Amino acid sequence: MPPDFLTVVDILGTAAFAVSGALAAMEHRLDPFGVLIIAFVTAIGGGTLRDVLVGNVPVSWLHNPTAIFVITLAAVAAMLFGSYLKHFTTTLFLFDALGLGLFTLTGLEIGMRYGLSAGICVALGTITASFGGVIRDVLLNKVPLIFQKEIYALSCVIGGSVYYAALQMGVQGNWLKIACILLVFFIRIIAVRYRLSLPRISVK
Amino acid sequence: MPPDFLTVVDILGTAAFAVSGALAAMEHRLDPFGVLIIAFVTAIGGGTLRDVLVGNVPVSWLHNPTAIFVITLAAVAAMLFGSYLKHFTTTLFLFDALGLGLFTLTGLEIGMRYGLSAGICVALGTITASFGGVIRDVLLNKVPLIFQKEIYALSCVIGGSVYYAALQMGVQGNWLKIACILLVFFIRIIAVRYRLSLPRISVK
Amino acid sequence: MPPDFLTVVDILGTAAFAVSGALAAMEHRLDPFGVLIIAFVTAIGGGTLRDVLVGNVPVSWLHNPTAIFVITLAAVAAMLFGSYLKHFTTTLFLFDALGLGLFTLTGLEIGMRYGLSAGICVALGTITASFGGVIRDVLLNKVPLIFQKEIYALSCVIGGSVYYAALQMGVQGNWLKIACILLVFFIRIIAVRYRLSLPRISVK
Repeated sequence: MPPDFLTVVDILGTAAFAVSGALAAMEHRLDPFGVLIIAFVTAIGGGTLRDVLVGNVPVSWLHNPTAIFVITLAAVAAMLFGSYLKHFTTTLFLFDALGLGLFTLTGLEIGMRYGLSAGICVALGTITASFGGVIRDVLLNKVPLIFQKEIYALSCVIGGSVYYAALQMGVQGNWLKIACILLVFFIRIIAVRYRLSLPRISVK
Repeated sequence: MPPDFLTVVDILGTAAFAVSGALAAMEHRLDPFGVLIIAFVTAIGGGTLRDVLVGNVPVSWLHNPTAIFVITLAAVAAMLFGSYLKHFTTTLFLFDALGLGLFTLTGLEIGMRYGLSAGICVALGTITASFGGVIRDVLLNKVPLIFQKEIYALSCVIGGSVYYAALQMGVQGNWLKIACILLVFFIRIIAVRYRLSLPRISVK
Repeated sequence: MPPDFLTVVDILGTAAFAVSGALAAMEHRLDPFGVLIIAFVTAIGGGTLRDVLVGNVPVSWLHNPTAIFVITLAAVAAMLFGSYLKHFTTTLFLFDALGLGLFTLTGLEIGMRYGLSAGICVALGTITASFGGVIRDVLLNKVPLIFQKEIYALSCVIGGSVYYAALQMGVQGNWLKIACILLVFFIRIIAVRYRLSLPRISVK
């Protein structure tokens, strides 16, 4: 059962990222091609940047028809049922938070496969999970949201660090992954629920 | 004759892309260095992204003195004769549309060389032809034009799909290429002539 | 002594780039995570782009704990002592100008190692030294500063060209490097001191 859980999280997370991209694009009144591209970039941008940085090419999504299918479907669904999907904000947020956890672990593992140090592995996990949203915001001409509010990347850093530490201590397996995904998930949910965010820094 | 035709289209297309970048930069009152960079990015940005995604490195333009020469010349010409070039908007548009067709085929072929699937090859062709303009717009702090209006990327998708299908059916050669370039060219011209564009999508 | 000088310049330059990124991020009132990311991107963005373009992967900073330490320290210092650091604008500017020179040479040498032509090597040096600032400005939603004013990239082009020419004539060694770094340094200082900048180009 656990492997199925991870596959399901992967698909739900990818779909949630794609829908969030598509809805953001629709708010900017892009045409269908633009909505599709932004959905893709949001869903695969972080993993693409990670792959390019370590040299894992052709980058993953070029060989991943499932992801392409899921993203296309999610983008089309967003275009057709945009106003309806808005009733499912909470559901989408939960899927997004699960995806955040899984993508952090995936990125971290690729860093380990390339023999990179602990901090870099955690950074690659965080990049994988969060830079799709950064590229989405850049393309939509906004200062990236995650630089400004909410504990988004921080939940990846914490979940990734715990995962890395556990692996170093010899713990491994799907249950560890699920535990770390849920850790990211709950940090994220608590942060949003209680409106926690890092203080903004400015030059006095 | 046909190979010469393709070389000529390559040079004219590259020059048209570079001029369009340079003129856009001049509208933003950049300095000569900025104009040159935007001209380069517009002309080689799409091919660079494609090369980076598949791992075709060092990326093509680093080994392509002709392209570098053509782009530099086009950028300098735009800076010297900017107001004069504006009388040739239509000519530039036609060269641009030819380049769009050729670059789509070039990108698609690189995807095939890396053994990627049909949809991905067409996507790489479209990225090659259209993402230079996306990066240009991001650097000039605008939401990319092609996400908003006119059938630009769509003409690449159609032309690329026909080319891929023809190759799979055993058709090949320069005449096929020229036919597909002209297909992209005419879709683009008809779209602009009749102001066709995809409807904008927004959340109701 | 000369090798120590180069190491010191590397560290001071990296720190100055990181501080300039952090201060720019703080002006936009980002949160600490955002400030850290912008500091990193400013300091390692140019080298990362260079590495990705030539295929030098995993990109350098993934294997460079010193750089990561220096950048993190610089970003934290900027967040803690932001208002105080402002008294050292001139010092930071001088470190920045030294870094500009060194990073130009580093990038140029990587181009030579990949057997690229003279113009491309100089371009890679310039990209290494100046594109961190371009990515910083894009993430902060501004038209990149170096496209608009001051002789920034031009000092890299001149310093890089002299270095390349000297290498071709058989001159080499740390004293050559130091001379070229100082050349970039002084061009930059004179340009800022006398408010020299390239004229802006616009379509009449």
